[in-house]
Amino acid sequence: MASVAENIGAPPGTLFYNGEERTDRIKITLIEYNESDFFEQEFYDLSDCLSHVKPNMIKWINVEGLHKPELVEKIGKIYNIHPLTMEDIVHVDQRPKFEDYEHYVVAIMKMISYDNKVNAEQLAVILCENTVISFQEPDGGDAFDIIRTRLRQSKGRVRKLGADYLAYALMDAVVDCYFTAIEKIGDKIEEIEEDIIDGSDKKSLLELYHLKREMIYLRKQVWPMRDMINNMVRSETILINPTSDIYLRDLSDHVTRIIDTVETYRDLLSGIMDIYLSTNANKMNEVMKVLTIMSSIFIPVTFIAGVYGMNFDNMPELRTQNGYFITWGIMLAIIIGLLIYFKRKKWM
Amino acid sequence: MASVAENIGAPPGTLFYNGEERTDRIKITLIEYNESDFFEQEFYDLSDCLSHVKPNMIKWINVEGLHKPELVEKIGKIYNIHPLTMEDIVHVDQRPKFEDYEHYVVAIMKMISYDNKVNAEQLAVILCENTVISFQEPDGGDAFDIIRTRLRQSKGRVRKLGADYLAYALMDAVVDCYFTAIEKIGDKIEEIEEDIIDGSDKKSLLELYHLKREMIYLRKQVWPMRDMINNMVRSETILINPTSDIYLRDLSDHVTRIIDTVETYRDLLSGIMDIYLSTNANKMNEVMKVLTIMSSIFIPVTFIAGVYGMNFDNMPELRTQNGYFITWGIMLAIIIGLLIYFKRKKWM
Amino acid sequence: MASVAENIGAPPGTLFYNGEERTDRIKITLIEYNESDFFEQEFYDLSDCLSHVKPNMIKWINVEGLHKPELVEKIGKIYNIHPLTMEDIVHVDQRPKFEDYEHYVVAIMKMISYDNKVNAEQLAVILCENTVISFQEPDGGDAFDIIRTRLRQSKGRVRKLGADYLAYALMDAVVDCYFTAIEKIGDKIEEIEEDIIDGSDKKSLLELYHLKREMIYLRKQVWPMRDMINNMVRSETILINPTSDIYLRDLSDHVTRIIDTVETYRDLLSGIMDIYLSTNANKMNEVMKVLTIMSSIFIPVTFIAGVYGMNFDNMPELRTQNGYFITWGIMLAIIIGLLIYFKRKKWM
Amino acid sequence: MASVAENIGAPPGTLFYNGEERTDRIKITLIEYNESDFFEQEFYDLSDCLSHVKPNMIKWINVEGLHKPELVEKIGKIYNIHPLTMEDIVHVDQRPKFEDYEHYVVAIMKMISYDNKVNAEQLAVILCENTVISFQEPDGGDAFDIIRTRLRQSKGRVRKLGADYLAYALMDAVVDCYFTAIEKIGDKIEEIEEDIIDGSDKKSLLELYHLKREMIYLRKQVWPMRDMINNMVRSETILINPTSDIYLRDLSDHVTRIIDTVETYRDLLSGIMDIYLSTNANKMNEVMKVLTIMSSIFIPVTFIAGVYGMNFDNMPELRTQNGYFITWGIMLAIIIGLLIYFKRKKWM
Amino acid sequence: MASVAENIGAPPGTLFYNGEERTDRIKITLIEYNESDFFEQEFYDLSDCLSHVKPNMIKWINVEGLHKPELVEKIGKIYNIHPLTMEDIVHVDQRPKFEDYEHYVVAIMKMISYDNKVNAEQLAVILCENTVISFQEPDGGDAFDIIRTRLRQSKGRVRKLGADYLAYALMDAVVDCYFTAIEKIGDKIEEIEEDIIDGSDKKSLLELYHLKREMIYLRKQVWPMRDMINNMVRSETILINPTSDIYLRDLSDHVTRIIDTVETYRDLLSGIMDIYLSTNANKMNEVMKVLTIMSSIFIPVTFIAGVYGMNFDNMPELRTQNGYFITWGIMLAIIIGLLIYFKRKKWM
Repeated sequence: MASVAENIGAPPGTLFYNGEERTDRIKITLIEYNESDFFEQEFYDLSDCLSHVKPNMIKWINVEGLHKPELVEKIGKIYNIHPLTMEDIVHVDQRPKFEDYEHYVVAIMKMISYDNKVNAEQLAVILCENTVISFQEPDGGDAFDIIRTRLRQSKGRVRKLGADYLAYALMDAVVDCYFTAIEKIGDKIEEIEEDIIDGSDKKSLLELYHLKREMIYLRKQVWPMRDMINNMVRSETILINPTSDIYLRDLSDHVTRIIDTVETYRDLLSGIMDIYLSTNANKMNEVMKVLTIMSSIFIPVTFIAGVYGMNFDNMPELRTQNGYFITWGIMLAIIIGLLIYFKRKKWM
Repeated sequence: MASVAENIGAPPGTLFYNGEERTDRIKITLIEYNESDFFEQEFYDLSDCLSHVKPNMIKWINVEGLHKPELVEKIGKIYNIHPLTMEDIVHVDQRPKFEDYEHYVVAIMKMISYDNKVNAEQLAVILCENTVISFQEPDGGDAFDIIRTRLRQSKGRVRKLGADYLAYALMDAVVDCYFTAIEKIGDKIEEIEEDIIDGSDKKSLLELYHLKREMIYLRKQVWPMRDMINNMVRSETILINPTSDIYLRDLSDHVTRIIDTVETYRDLLSGIMDIYLSTNANKMNEVMKVLTIMSSIFIPVTFIAGVYGMNFDNMPELRTQNGYFITWGIMLAIIIGLLIYFKRKKWM
Repeated sequence: MASVAENIGAPPGTLFYNGEERTDRIKITLIEYNESDFFEQEFYDLSDCLSHVKPNMIKWINVEGLHKPELVEKIGKIYNIHPLTMEDIVHVDQRPKFEDYEHYVVAIMKMISYDNKVNAEQLAVILCENTVISFQEPDGGDAFDIIRTRLRQSKGRVRKLGADYLAYALMDAVVDCYFTAIEKIGDKIEEIEEDIIDGSDKKSLLELYHLKREMIYLRKQVWPMRDMINNMVRSETILINPTSDIYLRDLSDHVTRIIDTVETYRDLLSGIMDIYLSTNANKMNEVMKVLTIMSSIFIPVTFIAGVYGMNFDNMPELRTQNGYFITWGIMLAIIIGLLIYFKRKKWM
Repeated sequence: MASVAENIGAPPGTLFYNGEERTDRIKITLIEYNESDFFEQEFYDLSDCLSHVKPNMIKWINVEGLHKPELVEKIGKIYNIHPLTMEDIVHVDQRPKFEDYEHYVVAIMKMISYDNKVNAEQLAVILCENTVISFQEPDGGDAFDIIRTRLRQSKGRVRKLGADYLAYALMDAVVDCYFTAIEKIGDKIEEIEEDIIDGSDKKSLLELYHLKREMIYLRKQVWPMRDMINNMVRSETILINPTSDIYLRDLSDHVTRIIDTVETYRDLLSGIMDIYLSTNANKMNEVMKVLTIMSSIFIPVTFIAGVYGMNFDNMPELRTQNGYFITWGIMLAIIIGLLIYFKRKKWM
Repeated sequence: MASVAENIGAPPGTLFYNGEERTDRIKITLIEYNESDFFEQEFYDLSDCLSHVKPNMIKWINVEGLHKPELVEKIGKIYNIHPLTMEDIVHVDQRPKFEDYEHYVVAIMKMISYDNKVNAEQLAVILCENTVISFQEPDGGDAFDIIRTRLRQSKGRVRKLGADYLAYALMDAVVDCYFTAIEKIGDKIEEIEEDIIDGSDKKSLLELYHLKREMIYLRKQVWPMRDMINNMVRSETILINPTSDIYLRDLSDHVTRIIDTVETYRDLLSGIMDIYLSTNANKMNEVMKVLTIMSSIFIPVTFIAGVYGMNFDNMPELRTQNGYFITWGIMLAIIIGLLIYFKRKKWM
């Protein structure tokens, strides 16, 4: 988890990157398109990139890497971004949110991947007039390949519609990641469920706990997503075309479905925990029954054997012809009696 | 469960069927009626079907099978359906929802059946002017037979009222399925309750867990149904006659009753789980008591027997005339004393 | 519980009685009154009854028995009642609700009685101009005797005020039944609480569970009552005099108090369950301690006795003069040592 | 708890006292004041009291004792109080509430004291023009002494402001009682927490349960208090001066703090319950470990001793010179081996 | 915890300090600044301090220590602060709140620090025209050093903006404390989690409980913070410049993130508790298995040894040549049989 505390005390609007430390260069991808033309190039230098920006085209500037706040600051100054927005972009522990600054809107969200652990990489999408700027951590990247392909091949509506549709398409790609993660988690839950019903051990308990913890974490990420998208739908910014509302509502619907599933999974996990505990209690019961049956059967007869092992001079039974055999008879009667008793109690 | 993930990355509005794979032909049933006339025919070809559509009649086109997205697409183009709607129709993992696209409204919901497992088949009902188009998965079908019969026999109000009433009647038939499923689940719960009160075993625990899981799943389906219907009541579409509102409110009421019952069942199931656990703990207690009584009674007297089984040369008690009988007396006294003690403690 | 499923598939507005089967005649009681006059008669025939209806008086028609839907239908036609209302009246598994049909309003609710089990009988109160029609199941009846007496004796305000006040008085009588039931349940809870604190057994566990189940059922009945009454207060029908609002608010207040108490009882029951479980665990602990003390004390000394019961030719201790007494000494030392140890651990 | 049921069936507005039975005379205290003058006298007769009422002064009539409904009725008639209000005043099981009857407003609340048990005495405060009438149960009385003193000594603002401020001051005194009770409960919780962490026994369990029950009861009293005060703040009565709103908001704030604390205490109590249960389970574990260690160590060696206590004629070991000592060696090896094993498992 | 009860009975608006008793002098720090000038001095005397106040500058008066209510009162009179506000300032058990008194606004909140225990010191910030007065308990102080430094060095925006921005900066510093505390708690949780997964003991249980208790307490502090800030955002006071709203919204966002984290931690802690309990139950299971295996294996064979230790005269087996060896064979067969049985049951 990214550290939340290190920025403390700095004046608000201070750009402070709190993710993993990195030294590699930051890749900036510029894509420009309209219905007929398409241009795409990767840069490692901002001014280089900006010199390629052409008017009359929709621009998408994708910045991969947040570890150089000064780069974000430069872009921010060019596009007139509020310092608080820039602070949020590089401070990678944000709550998903949507904010409207009139000449631009910004949506901050998390890209999720699941690989036995929920990984969340922060993504900020800024939508200004005809331009989308996206800032992402480098590891969360390939979710956008699909959109790049669609742009290149002019597949779907994306080349025909404005920058707001592009922003929506990016967010849609992010939400799709959630579905992938959730499906993986669903498979994992089914696996653990089977394991535990078959017979629970310490390992499945820990796996169950880890999954539960990941769900708690995922839930923390996914609930504010809905608020974020709903704020976006309700916002009255002129940057989003009213005809795009239908797509945003669809997105909101997807997020609601994800939330439903996350809640369902939480319920399932607590059901599985109950099964684990009950199964354990049942096993304990079984162990105790074996102990009780073995002890109850042999302790009394061992006592009888003990009695006739005593060395008193005057023990008349010892001298009788059939004493030994009668004793065996009594002992067997006790054993059989107790066996019947336990059978009746359904302990066997 | 239908796969949620496979559609990921496709541009929004891409028709992607994610249900079970199928190859059979898709049946299209066309019913046309007004107060005096009635026409009904099954088709396996869309253009064939559409050639039979007559003006001045209310039309119900029922499509059974969603596994050929191109068919849905063709219908969508004819009736001017938004691509997102068409995507939702064939993507069978939708959350129940109602959407108003001005020239048509669409309600997506789940048909439920219970057969030791909650099965949900997706149903989409599109209401345009004088026309209802319903898309359903083939296995969820026979709930509509009743409506067909009513239409044929002109029973009830259905032939006298408009397309909106037909759409309502379809939804009402769907909601009725929920009641059937819930009643079956209620019976199952009573069964398990009895089993567990009588004496719990591993089998009832697993049954309880399965039922709980089905309830979690059912709950996920049924809560959004209410939102859906309430959105429909509140919607200001001109396609729904204000006089139909009373029927929709009735529907909303039914769904609320279903939700109440589902919640009640959840409470009952958790109550039964408590009983299971307590009963188990009680049994354990009983087992432990038997063990404790048997051990506590015989261990001390076995010790005494052991003492007089020792082979010391000088053990004066062994030589006395009545040593053996006195020992027996002491041992019996101990046994009886402990029995009284346990009786007093109410362990016996 | 009344069957919910049998009406399924029938067209909406079909009158379908789903309560207990009955064949007895249905009693219709007509009461007519104004401030000065009073008339009361029982009928078993509807037309007979209606022939007695006089203008200028407030009329209360009480129908006891819902098992003949055709009777309800007849009354419905005379008073112009909507088929959906009539369906609700005879379908005795309704959720409490209030509906405003302009020329009449209808309140459907449950009469509750508690007799080791919560029994709910459905009651529908229709208020039209100057007329109250109440439909009730025959077993829930005597709650209205008090109102009849008040009407006959012109006690309280009831004869001076309109039909809306009569409807309110009927509902008030119904809510009073809830208080009676709740008080009985409260007594029962106190009883079980004492039983369980004194010492829990299987019987109290089952009683606790049954009470919990009844509370779940009662809760399902009582929550929608509040919505119902609040809808009534908020409704803008001209049939309810604004001056009656104060009585309805009082009623709403009563229902809120009932809900508070039901929720409190639920909390209490879950507290009692906790006590039951902890008490049980404590008992188990005690049983285990007895077992452990007995076993731990006698098992080591039995071992020593066993050692000197061995038959080796060369066992020097056996030949010593005081071996036996020394052995006793060692064994007693062990026993006393362990007793002190357990005393210190507070296990005794 | 006061009986809720006895009023059942009486016409609404019937005055029915349902508290403890009493026969003592009812004390009526009249206080009249303005900024310059102050008059105070106790009466046991209503007309006597009313003859002392002077115009141009603010009047506070405090009635201690509700067991003579006819007295309340007389006052009600003089001040034109609605019968439903009077019914609420004497029916001492009300939910805290505020009602606005235009020419007067009434606030009904509970005075709380804690003395190992939460005691709630009902208080009704009626505010009419220049007059405050308070009805209280006799045991809840001394909370008002402070206000009397302030009035006599003209301390604080109370003599300078109107009747609404007096009503507020009374309510403030009531809310202060809650703080006292809550502080006592907080101390009690800390005590029990320590007891249980030190070592839990049956007594602390019962105390914990009783405290939990009292919290459930207190919670039922305190939640509606907030609604009551908020209704008062929002009410548009002319009897409350807008400048008093600031005091009411302060009161609302206090009640919110009480609610926060009650909820916090509930969380704490359930945390303590968890500790109790875990501590118990830990103890059980320890008991079982002792049993297991003792049994596991001595049962195998006792078996060996038993073997060489057998009386077979042909047992070569018995005849060897060192058999006995070798046997001892084996037995000690087993004992030491098992001790090491248990040490490694950290059971010792 | 500060005592809540001692102020009880005092007239509202009475200044009553209920924190720790102190006798030290109260430090008053005056900072005055505008974009160009800066003045800072510490005083121990109010009139001394006030004599330095200059017009045309933004003033920040920071009072460290609330134990002399008369000082607060004096300041209150000079700045025309309402007595209820002053009461809240010195009564250090307030719920965080924001209040608008037109000529000033006041925000009361808690400064949090975590040092194995959550410590909360009350802070009140009063914002009047061009002046911020902050009252704090002396131990919570150094969070403001950073702001002083920023003011001195004219870092960030603070010197350029008005008093409202200063008030915001103070509150932001307070919220930053929460992040520090939460991060420490997060580390602690991870530590305990590891401890408990590795192997739970009594110590970790108590630590877990203490952490849970601290979380309950922290939660009580942090939830009202959000309401407070939202009230501030929504307030229509002219003292807060609309352009500052963006900073307040950012603050609200931070508090929401803190709340999210607190809730997540609560979920984590309850998950850890579950693991603790399950791990314990697992251990118990293991202990019981060892006991059962040891007892079940040796009790039957000890019985056999006991039988042939009996002293009957006529025991034919004893006289046979190989009796002893056959008996050993039988005993070993039993032991091995049981070992295989337990192996199969996976108890070993």
